[in-house]
Amino acid sequence: MRLPDSLAELFPDLHLPSPTDAPPLKWGILGPGKIAQTFASHLRQNTAQELFAVGSRSFGRAAAFAAKNDADRAYGSYEELIADEEVDAIYIATPHSHHIEPAMKAIAAGKPILVEKSLTANAKDTDALLTAAEKAGVFAMEALWSRFLTPWVLTRELVQGGHLGEIVSVKAELTSPLLEVERMTNPELAGGAIRDLGVYPLNFAQFLLGDGELVHTSGTLAESGVESDAIMITDHRGVPAISMCSMRGQAPSSAEVVGTKGWVRIPTRMHQPGAMQVALEIDGEQVKEKIDARVTAPYRFEACEVARCVAAGKTESTSMPHWDSRHLATVMDEARAALGAR
Amino acid sequence: MRLPDSLAELFPDLHLPSPTDAPPLKWGILGPGKIAQTFASHLRQNTAQELFAVGSRSFGRAAAFAAKNDADRAYGSYEELIADEEVDAIYIATPHSHHIEPAMKAIAAGKPILVEKSLTANAKDTDALLTAAEKAGVFAMEALWSRFLTPWVLTRELVQGGHLGEIVSVKAELTSPLLEVERMTNPELAGGAIRDLGVYPLNFAQFLLGDGELVHTSGTLAESGVESDAIMITDHRGVPAISMCSMRGQAPSSAEVVGTKGWVRIPTRMHQPGAMQVALEIDGEQVKEKIDARVTAPYRFEACEVARCVAAGKTESTSMPHWDSRHLATVMDEARAALGAR
Repeated sequence: MRLPDSLAELFPDLHLPSPTDAPPLKWGILGPGKIAQTFASHLRQNTAQELFAVGSRSFGRAAAFAAKNDADRAYGSYEELIADEEVDAIYIATPHSHHIEPAMKAIAAGKPILVEKSLTANAKDTDALLTAAEKAGVFAMEALWSRFLTPWVLTRELVQGGHLGEIVSVKAELTSPLLEVERMTNPELAGGAIRDLGVYPLNFAQFLLGDGELVHTSGTLAESGVESDAIMITDHRGVPAISMCSMRGQAPSSAEVVGTKGWVRIPTRMHQPGAMQVALEIDGEQVKEKIDARVTAPYRFEACEVARCVAAGKTESTSMPHWDSRHLATVMDEARAALGAR
Repeated sequence: MRLPDSLAELFPDLHLPSPTDAPPLKWGILGPGKIAQTFASHLRQNTAQELFAVGSRSFGRAAAFAAKNDADRAYGSYEELIADEEVDAIYIATPHSHHIEPAMKAIAAGKPILVEKSLTANAKDTDALLTAAEKAGVFAMEALWSRFLTPWVLTRELVQGGHLGEIVSVKAELTSPLLEVERMTNPELAGGAIRDLGVYPLNFAQFLLGDGELVHTSGTLAESGVESDAIMITDHRGVPAISMCSMRGQAPSSAEVVGTKGWVRIPTRMHQPGAMQVALEIDGEQVKEKIDARVTAPYRFEACEVARCVAAGKTESTSMPHWDSRHLATVMDEARAALGAR
């Protein structure tokens, strides 16, 4: 993403680490579903990352995924994948409800893990998972990949550097018509709009403003008892953030940050921005910029963050720390409880 | 505003009445301030409307305004303006707190009135004003001019015609850095963000969805005790609307309507749209349109609505009925009370 001159002058050091430079990891993919396929196709685009092995409860699925994605090894159980000594790190892409069991096994085996968001089904499990990783000294990170994209990082720089003045509000929405997807409405699989979609806007606000306290939730429930829509307001030491999500709607899924001196808008797909608009004051002059924010293969950036952290011997990422995952999970629990969601 | 072909086919009858055709009225302007100046300059652009007289507490101000705007008569009191038998209708543009007194006098004199929004300082006064007009059989309308602009009317047609499917949410914001404007923060002049800015997003939701019940308010107070920001959530028979306003911020002031089959976005200045984006399904196909929605001299449309209603012997406008003004005032009272605003 190339910054316009006005912003490039403001942020001469906004160089995100290139995925090309990240140290190589031999990745194991656990749960070769749809999201894992996207991850696999992004993982190796101009990176040193290797898709080494695949583990599924069905050997056939693992083998098919391995063949399609040119992985060396396929396993018919999670345990075999975890036990493979040549696997450097494991990406866990089962449904939310089924993250914790294989994650605990991977931690016990000393394998670094990148776990699909939401990290687990609830705050209790999230705390158990992260505490286990901390005790074992094993790297663990929730796969909130948008935090590693330039538009999000630039927005945070603008906010935290005071370039928008005092922040007045943040609002973000992620909506996708998923009501017909069985997993999404199944309470047993930790379905519902908040953990699959709402986690992005909540996480956006947290990334920009730090932790927020939930002050309002409204929404509707699907027939199965999970929430189909939610509006959540969090208070971040006086700054309100509005996070919206829906499995029913067709929406631009925009985000806006409003300050006393300027604003940022991501007009569509706030989790994977294609464009950004920025208005701010530079040297007393109002500057308005449209930025082409398209990113190729966005999931590789989170994978490269894992590679860097593991190579450096870290047990968590400073960009997506355990604290943030714990707090997000707590807010999501509270919001779901407020709606009476299953 | 020219509709793209796809929407023109969908709405062959979306022809708003032309301001050119509205019957002539001799207007009196009461309270010749900044908003009145804008009204005066819009009033006569390709219309038959006449700016006939001006009344102010200061004859000098009235005379200067009349001279600048080519009005025939100037008065040094509201009473003289109201008593002028040749004046057909009066536009009341004093601060919110000072609408009711001259409005009551105009009603008593049988003069049709267009009253700047917010109609009065609170729901009690609004009810008193409208009840007086109803009893006297005199036309009265709150000057919520955006309702008479094609983008708002088109959005309502899309919503109410089911073209966006079921409505999932409406959100709108109007923000303007007005903290330094004395009137805006003065409780005695009915200052505060809600009655000056928030009235637009609340009114947008009401226009699209009918009355909403206030379910959440958050915000901050300025030093003077009026609210500088507010977030209000209203529930419209199950459809949530988020209305935001701020006197501190710089914001795009966007609006979005999200449905199960499509959406509408007004990216900036939702009260006076310059552009619209519409996504919807037509004959099973996804259509996305950008519409140039610029309108010249927007205030003339509300003036022409008054002219038509008065000529037809109506006492209220069906597009901006008394019921809506009463309900808006109640919601604003509730929101201000929730914030503890003066």
